[in-house]
Amino acid sequence: MTAADRFSFNHATAKFWDQREAVEACAREGVGIGLWREPLQEMGVEATAKLVKDAGVEVTSLCRAGFFTNPTKEAIADNRKAIEEAAAVGAPTLVLVSGGIPEGKTIDQAREGVKEALEELAPYAVEQGITLAIEPLHPMFASDRCVVTTLGEALDLAAPFSPEAVGVVVDTYHIWWDPEVWKGIARAGRENRIASFQFADWITPLPAGVLTGRGQLGDGCIDFKRYLKEVDATGFTGPIEVELFNDALWARPGAEVFAETKAAFERVVA
Amino acid sequence: MTAADRFSFNHATAKFWDQREAVEACAREGVGIGLWREPLQEMGVEATAKLVKDAGVEVTSLCRAGFFTNPTKEAIADNRKAIEEAAAVGAPTLVLVSGGIPEGKTIDQAREGVKEALEELAPYAVEQGITLAIEPLHPMFASDRCVVTTLGEALDLAAPFSPEAVGVVVDTYHIWWDPEVWKGIARAGRENRIASFQFADWITPLPAGVLTGRGQLGDGCIDFKRYLKEVDATGFTGPIEVELFNDALWARPGAEVFAETKAAFERVVA
Repeated sequence: MTAADRFSFNHATAKFWDQREAVEACAREGVGIGLWREPLQEMGVEATAKLVKDAGVEVTSLCRAGFFTNPTKEAIADNRKAIEEAAAVGAPTLVLVSGGIPEGKTIDQAREGVKEALEELAPYAVEQGITLAIEPLHPMFASDRCVVTTLGEALDLAAPFSPEAVGVVVDTYHIWWDPEVWKGIARAGRENRIASFQFADWITPLPAGVLTGRGQLGDGCIDFKRYLKEVDATGFTGPIEVELFNDALWARPGAEVFAETKAAFERVVA
Repeated sequence: MTAADRFSFNHATAKFWDQREAVEACAREGVGIGLWREPLQEMGVEATAKLVKDAGVEVTSLCRAGFFTNPTKEAIADNRKAIEEAAAVGAPTLVLVSGGIPEGKTIDQAREGVKEALEELAPYAVEQGITLAIEPLHPMFASDRCVVTTLGEALDLAAPFSPEAVGVVVDTYHIWWDPEVWKGIARAGRENRIASFQFADWITPLPAGVLTGRGQLGDGCIDFKRYLKEVDATGFTGPIEVELFNDALWARPGAEVFAETKAAFERVVA
């Protein structure tokens, strides 16, 4: 299997593309798909499960649960529901974004909340055959979206659990700036924690709010071949999802964005 | 000396305020000032030196040199000139922002450029009695402004040199998100590397381009008392500069921004 054959299309790259069309496009091209909970819920869990099964498409992950820095009953219940959704559609992995700093708390306290939430959820994930994948986000999201900011931190959070229960997401966009990133990837491999591998490029200037400025592969400064090499060296052979939050891409037809993204992926791994 | 007495006003907080007025306001209030090269050069090195001497104001740092990830002759010459400017106005410290990734290089290669530049500059800094202060910037600036992203990385870069030659900047805005930040501050103290201590608050949403979104102290999520406590614990007793890049502040009269910032500082350290 070449690197190009490991491409998986994360639905968020063409956020407004109908889920059925996206799944069918992936089926035609023989590539995997990363699904999102909102379109899944809109179509219904059963209907989505049937869609991917009939299409014969590999669901490489379900995005996204988490948001449990304040691990309330509601937050935990929603994450349990997400685990069930992942199991229903055959996703091996549920991606978790921790959430930001709750009102009146410090970032250190918010991080304690993440530990508590993982303790609550890990046994249920194992029961359902799902690996929870902690995603460190870029530190520019630390206050309002994700207090987990480095691969090292994500690995420390995963450490108390089995690798089947809790892993990490290696997403180039969020970790490329980290002077410890190569060590972090090697450690993630050694500890068998790579549950998801994602590509997006880093481009500037960042747009206001900074959420939707991810670059098409090759447009920015990230050395994807190096990431591929370092992750390959750990023995990880799983899919590589491309997930781009980008206003300009979102404004265009999904099929076009899909084809362009697949071609860009093939170029950067060639 | 109380924490409130350690306030120093970084001129960039009121970027468009005349340098003479800023210095004279600091003199009247008995506080220090962090100067910037552009207004210094506009007034002239001699005239600025005379201004601060006559006013009896402590210059706590000169901002900003660096931008030497591609350490060309021109870049090194400009940094030597900045060292001379710092010496002329009696600033103990020259703040260095490393610069981004040069065209066609990787971030790792850019970091090698920083090492080379420091080797070139450190002896001249010692000769002139100036400490070079490596400032890690927030990772959202890693590609276009500063490849040095953590306190740990800045300390590693400083390690080959004496603490008199090369130190680091501890700026809350840039490092607050780091899960290793308390360890980093303790290490900076142990290694005697704290050359500048700066406050700015983290607020969201970030503006487009992300440069000018720093928050007034108390408006964001940073626990300044904790930073004060951790830095105090290292034995550092130097000034605390407040440096806010903020479009809304820059649009207002300098004297008003100065008074408001001093009051905000007194509140967050009280």
